[in-house]
Amino acid sequence: MRILGIDPGSRVTGYGVIEKQGNRLIHIDNGAIYTDSKDSLAHRLQTIHEGLVRIIGRYNPEAMAVEEIFLAKNALSALKLGHARGAALLAGTRHQLPVFEYTALQVKSAVVGYGRAAKPQVQHMVRVLMNLPEIAQEDASDALAVAICHAHSHQLTARLQKSSR
Amino acid sequence: MRILGIDPGSRVTGYGVIEKQGNRLIHIDNGAIYTDSKDSLAHRLQTIHEGLVRIIGRYNPEAMAVEEIFLAKNALSALKLGHARGAALLAGTRHQLPVFEYTALQVKSAVVGYGRAAKPQVQHMVRVLMNLPEIAQEDASDALAVAICHAHSHQLTARLQKSSR
Repeated sequence: MRILGIDPGSRVTGYGVIEKQGNRLIHIDNGAIYTDSKDSLAHRLQTIHEGLVRIIGRYNPEAMAVEEIFLAKNALSALKLGHARGAALLAGTRHQLPVFEYTALQVKSAVVGYGRAAKPQVQHMVRVLMNLPEIAQEDASDALAVAICHAHSHQLTARLQKSSR
Repeated sequence: MRILGIDPGSRVTGYGVIEKQGNRLIHIDNGAIYTDSKDSLAHRLQTIHEGLVRIIGRYNPEAMAVEEIFLAKNALSALKLGHARGAALLAGTRHQLPVFEYTALQVKSAVVGYGRAAKPQVQHMVRVLMNLPEIAQEDASDALAVAICHAHSHQLTARLQKSSR
């Protein structure tokens, strides 16, 4: 199963593509889509949206995973983040990808085994789990983390269904 | 010139289509796109996006106008509104529509002639200017108001350009 994790932002949107083969997780790609702050809001949203549409077209994932947001610094930053997130999620739905949301606690628990892990620990574990030569760009690393979380969660769901038969 | 005004919201997205012929403004259509609160966020964004894509396809407007947001009640409502707004704006950019943003002050000034006008006054003037038999649905009326604002502003810009020749 191939999973696209995303970490949307109005300036930088991270993405990470992983593949789950049995119990193994394989890193396929990660990167970041940058928007130009001199562009109009509508144009920046299009950059995010079209960038992810291209990634989906290239790797053909079966699911999209994104971190659920509970808190934002303030209303204005929440509004900006919301725009970017909306543009990103739409890229998934346009391709009929199911979209899964996970809390930061779930993501950290899945990657580090500890829900209150610090960011550097998460980045380190993403590098180790994905067998990367170095720590990925910050937002790309977060995107890989939520993809890993979905892979684990999916695994767990599959296991539970099996044991309940 | 045909203008699509929109008033995006995660539950209801209003739209209004008007046509400017010389100094006359003609009402073409208005309405609202409703999302089902039982649907997933991604699915609701798609409902908004695809709904506006259909409206654009049907009426072929040359510009999109939307109210600029400065304040939201709180971070969570700002985040929700941002998602809806992002999905709505993308419908315009997918069709290469230029998107114009106006403040509430600009919209009210254009419609009522007074920037601090109350909502019922704005709704009343929209009905009168558009020659509607009754006041339009709340969000559709707001969408028509921002479209009217763009028509006036465009007129003003055109006039200024003419007089500076």
